Amino acid sequence: MIILSAEKLRKLGADFLIASGAPEDEARLVSDFLVRANLAGHDSHGIMRILRYVDNVLQKKIRPRAKLEVVKETLSSALLNGNWGFGQVVGTKAMELAIEKAEKSAIGAVSVFNCNHVGRLADYTLMAAKKNMMGLAFVNAAKIVAPFGGMDRMLGTNPISFAAPMAKERPFVFDMATSVCAEGKIWVKLHSKQSLPEGWILDKEGRPSGNPADLYSGGVILPLGGYVGYKGYGLSLVTEILCGILSGAECSYSNQFKGGNGVFFEAINIKCFIDIEEFKEKMDKLVNAMRNSKRAPGSSEILVPGDPEERMEQKRLIEGIPIPDVTWTEFTALADKLGINIQKVIE
Amino acid sequence: MIILSAEKLRKLGADFLIASGAPEDEARLVSDFLVRANLAGHDSHGIMRILRYVDNVLQKKIRPRAKLEVVKETLSSALLNGNWGFGQVVGTKAMELAIEKAEKSAIGAVSVFNCNHVGRLADYTLMAAKKNMMGLAFVNAAKIVAPFGGMDRMLGTNPISFAAPMAKERPFVFDMATSVCAEGKIWVKLHSKQSLPEGWILDKEGRPSGNPADLYSGGVILPLGGYVGYKGYGLSLVTEILCGILSGAECSYSNQFKGGNGVFFEAINIKCFIDIEEFKEKMDKLVNAMRNSKRAPGSSEILVPGDPEERMEQKRLIEGIPIPDVTWTEFTALADKLGINIQKVIE
Repeated sequence: MIILSAEKLRKLGADFLIASGAPEDEARLVSDFLVRANLAGHDSHGIMRILRYVDNVLQKKIRPRAKLEVVKETLSSALLNGNWGFGQVVGTKAMELAIEKAEKSAIGAVSVFNCNHVGRLADYTLMAAKKNMMGLAFVNAAKIVAPFGGMDRMLGTNPISFAAPMAKERPFVFDMATSVCAEGKIWVKLHSKQSLPEGWILDKEGRPSGNPADLYSGGVILPLGGYVGYKGYGLSLVTEILCGILSGAECSYSNQFKGGNGVFFEAINIKCFIDIEEFKEKMDKLVNAMRNSKRAPGSSEILVPGDPEERMEQKRLIEGIPIPDVTWTEFTALADKLGINIQKVIE
Repeated sequence: MIILSAEKLRKLGADFLIASGAPEDEARLVSDFLVRANLAGHDSHGIMRILRYVDNVLQKKIRPRAKLEVVKETLSSALLNGNWGFGQVVGTKAMELAIEKAEKSAIGAVSVFNCNHVGRLADYTLMAAKKNMMGLAFVNAAKIVAPFGGMDRMLGTNPISFAAPMAKERPFVFDMATSVCAEGKIWVKLHSKQSLPEGWILDKEGRPSGNPADLYSGGVILPLGGYVGYKGYGLSLVTEILCGILSGAECSYSNQFKGGNGVFFEAINIKCFIDIEEFKEKMDKLVNAMRNSKRAPGSSEILVPGDPEERMEQKRLIEGIPIPDVTWTEFTALADKLGINIQKVIE
């Protein structure tokens, strides 16, 4: 297996996108988002996606240099037409705009339609946290999740993210699919020939299944919650409303949903409510109270959201990012097709 | 068992509060909130709470006629000191203010400290929906939930609610605890001598338990999610941050948390993003698409959030609201103490 440094991987990703027609600034931004997902350990949202992105650029589903249009705007809100630019480019501008609005009027909420896959939401809410704000992000996506009690693909995995600044640590960041798991986790189980825990998917006949292949032959992922799957289902519907209906991007179930993500981003300017230093100190106390509370029998430690990702980042910054052989083979083929000397990029 | 109409129950509740020292308008508002929870079938948030409220008024934990203070304010935000008035009175004013702000500047976000128990969150988010806005509500509360991997009481059941208007139906409304269940549901199981499903609570030694009494002898409720309890835990922490830290009310785990609820309410003015009629029609289509999708084997129907509550309300408006004998006995004793002729109220 090939192991590459984040820096080399970033360059490789950018080179792929530039060769497929993206301008350098957009290519670097997108590649940086993908490699950050790898650093965090979320390889399903990492550099392997570049294969699909290049394909989408060549098929004109992603339109490099697309101009973002402000369709409707107030002091604290905006509706944007992403015009099918790179999701990460559009998403970055959307959160920047939310932050700018929150600087002026406490809250900024931005909704986007015609937007490609924006990648990992944590990277957007962290933008707000780095500006001493709280960030909230919701997106809907292609349908693959059943309603509670149902077996049709009706909802996306519809993730939610939240971030807030801390005093002595990196920001608090939470990022979850409203389904029992992200689709990428099932894909990973399939490729590693592992079975799934109970309650993750139904097969195409609506029967519970532990075989990840059953998802890809017409099955569905269940909403978050096991016994209380109606809660994950409810959160998923909230995300459909905030992202699919409010923006006009359409809901995941609808034939009019054109792919990518419907987006709702919000920035909340903390200092409009409370002293920012007081807020940050209380954040540190909160997370440390959790970590230092009593462990349940069989539990080795208590973490807070973002801890596993931070550990993985520390590790991968030192040891590099492993690229599965199957991905590397595809990278090599793509490099040949685009006329990139892949050996030179990684040496 | 006594069965009373909503109207009589509302009057009884208001009479209790007036006799304990509340002004008539506040007493009616609080009683109405409680009876609405009964109508929706959530008896744990219903009229039985009046016993505790009267006690709190007599002990001056609830201060009738408390003046709500605006501590900090912008066009789209406010921080309020509830001065320990009735939670429902303070909460109503907080959501009214959020709506007023959203009317002027697209988004209104209001955070409250020194606030007593506000009751069921759905009633606040519905206020926004009735004004053609989306409503969001979060509160933190007394600690009774363990962090993922832990066994100490560190978090409240920390509910979240969302509502949005529809075209032909009553508004969409979602309201969930971020714990596997609300504490009231375990209390109900205890009183009906039923055991709990797996994965709801740990006993005081941190062992999984199906005995509801174990919660009340030092046990904890688990966060939403079963296998993925870290998601419910993450949502609960987000609620602590939005409600306990942003408002200054303090987090549930802290010794400085004085009870009641830390509050974060938000109203989002839909027409600042999209045509309100288009929004509402798409809401109707979304919920009907879910209801009409294919049922999984063993599932009798597919509902959307709010459907069970609406059915219960239809039923109880006709049949009345049953009051358990134990509650009625306590009501009778309280009426004697306050000099209320309970027979006259209900006849």
